[in-house]
Amino acid sequence: MTRNQSVLVTPSATNNSIPRDSRQRAKEFVLALQDEICNGLEALDGKAKFHQDIWQRAEGGEGRTRVIREGRVFEQGGVNFSEVWGDTLPPAILTQRPEAAGHGFYATGTSMVLHPRNPYVPTVHLNYRYFEAGPIWWFGGGADLTPYYAFTEDAVHFHQTLKNACDQHHPEYYPTYKRWCDEYFYLRHRQEQRGIGGIFFDYQDAHGNLYAGSEPDSPAAIYSQKVGRINHSWEDVFAMVQSCGKAFLPAYAPIVERRQDTEYSDRQRQFQLYRRGRYVEFNLVYDRGTIFGLQTNGRAESILMSLPPLTRWEYGYQPEPGSPEAQLTKVFLQPQDWVNASINAEYNI
Amino acid sequence: MTRNQSVLVTPSATNNSIPRDSRQRAKEFVLALQDEICNGLEALDGKAKFHQDIWQRAEGGEGRTRVIREGRVFEQGGVNFSEVWGDTLPPAILTQRPEAAGHGFYATGTSMVLHPRNPYVPTVHLNYRYFEAGPIWWFGGGADLTPYYAFTEDAVHFHQTLKNACDQHHPEYYPTYKRWCDEYFYLRHRQEQRGIGGIFFDYQDAHGNLYAGSEPDSPAAIYSQKVGRINHSWEDVFAMVQSCGKAFLPAYAPIVERRQDTEYSDRQRQFQLYRRGRYVEFNLVYDRGTIFGLQTNGRAESILMSLPPLTRWEYGYQPEPGSPEAQLTKVFLQPQDWVNASINAEYNI
Repeated sequence: MTRNQSVLVTPSATNNSIPRDSRQRAKEFVLALQDEICNGLEALDGKAKFHQDIWQRAEGGEGRTRVIREGRVFEQGGVNFSEVWGDTLPPAILTQRPEAAGHGFYATGTSMVLHPRNPYVPTVHLNYRYFEAGPIWWFGGGADLTPYYAFTEDAVHFHQTLKNACDQHHPEYYPTYKRWCDEYFYLRHRQEQRGIGGIFFDYQDAHGNLYAGSEPDSPAAIYSQKVGRINHSWEDVFAMVQSCGKAFLPAYAPIVERRQDTEYSDRQRQFQLYRRGRYVEFNLVYDRGTIFGLQTNGRAESILMSLPPLTRWEYGYQPEPGSPEAQLTKVFLQPQDWVNASINAEYNI
Repeated sequence: MTRNQSVLVTPSATNNSIPRDSRQRAKEFVLALQDEICNGLEALDGKAKFHQDIWQRAEGGEGRTRVIREGRVFEQGGVNFSEVWGDTLPPAILTQRPEAAGHGFYATGTSMVLHPRNPYVPTVHLNYRYFEAGPIWWFGGGADLTPYYAFTEDAVHFHQTLKNACDQHHPEYYPTYKRWCDEYFYLRHRQEQRGIGGIFFDYQDAHGNLYAGSEPDSPAAIYSQKVGRINHSWEDVFAMVQSCGKAFLPAYAPIVERRQDTEYSDRQRQFQLYRRGRYVEFNLVYDRGTIFGLQTNGRAESILMSLPPLTRWEYGYQPEPGSPEAQLTKVFLQPQDWVNASINAEYNI
């Protein structure tokens, strides 16, 4: 059965079944993805190398955390792998997935955040994870871009590359996951998107609900209801996740190459440090992976490796109207149909 | 019906009765405290003045936010006053106080965080607040100190001054609230105290439970159980809160005066920026006031005014064993009986 045929198959009595070696395959995938991405990022940076820490989790599990710092491109960043298990999932997940109550769990995944030095190079985030708990399993994850000075061509490229990966598997994956990403990476208290988005999904299992978020009236939820249920098996979802993971470097690397030598001054640097504050706010207040990690006695250094090297907060900061800094919030931190974007975002830089 | 008359509590012949002008008196106290502290801090700084913003909350309420920056002593800091009301308290509080369910609420308070420039001057926090919701009312708050380079004499002075204020009202206030402060300002994911503590309390009403936290086996809970219930009326609690509020400047100002001219180099500055990251982690992950504000559509700029001007995160940082930086975590960020402290904390600075 090929990937493209798999969505047509409707063995509804069996599509909840999972392969015997599901955990092993998921784990090998995320390990290989971590390797591939680290190699790609080191090549991009050209100077710094990742430093690796192997760690054990007392309650069960292990990980390898890789950190890059003081590079040519990357000021600081980390790519984490972990495999953890335990007696019970944390309450926040059990509320979403009550079928898992009373069962042990297994989770494996890779996550990364890269904070470049040049304010014209966007910060990027990726996470793919796999869960099993009693009778249920699911995949989650995605990738999204957080520019400080944004360019339409970069946003289009990033989204188009992820869309191509999704479209190999089902035409409704990208439109749902793109909207879900906008919903998820949203700072309610600031009424701002975290960045220009990308794709995000969670609880992707055989039930066929492409959207499994908590906002029933969101654009992602409404879109997903129109699509209806899709039969997809463990193999289908896993294949989609693999394609998305492999699309990361092609989505991000060309943007780094295009922006890394753009000259900047203290104005751009100060704005970058200020905007990094929003990244901290999102990760500590809203991020599901961070909260899961902290709730499960995860390794704090690895979980919080996503935080930036240098950040600042300034009470009441308002960018000058019409400036690139104002454009960021007004134009780019609003949900946009990026693959069809025609916004003129030329800046005098 | 005016705002202040809107909760007409029937005096039940018990000490649960509250004065008719309870809201007005609580509000006038926190407004006067904000004034007194801002004046004192400007005098201490000698250069920068507070900038004030008056704001309205769409759902009901108003505030005045005062920010100081780029001062001689204070790199950035804010002293906030707010008075807010609404139809329902957020879920986190209703879980603690189910009697308030189905009732509107009123809350007023002042809160402040000051981030000094010199790493030898500690960051300080204060908050006092008053709530009414249907049949119940309570006071909460406290003050605590977060040094970067800690000195026993400063810790003793800060605690002794707060203890004296508490002791004017009841000998069991300080021992309970001191332990509760240690319990509250704790970063579970780091297994570290935020600082050297001070006093903290919440839900102080006529029920006489000095401890009303959520950790039944904590030192604060165990101590409070030994003490048993205490008869204290609205007037008693309010008087205690006023004494604590007025003790703030005498507790903090002498420490600033003693440390403000200590010479420091990039080493101390870098450690200060690193440790400020812990402050951010606490405020965004655990702080009740921050979470209340964000959950009630509070004014984000005012709520997050507590965050530092410049902060950094560094993966895997470990101070050199035996250094002052290592002493901070090993000695000072552990709960200590500070008023009786005799720890030798001499540093070569």
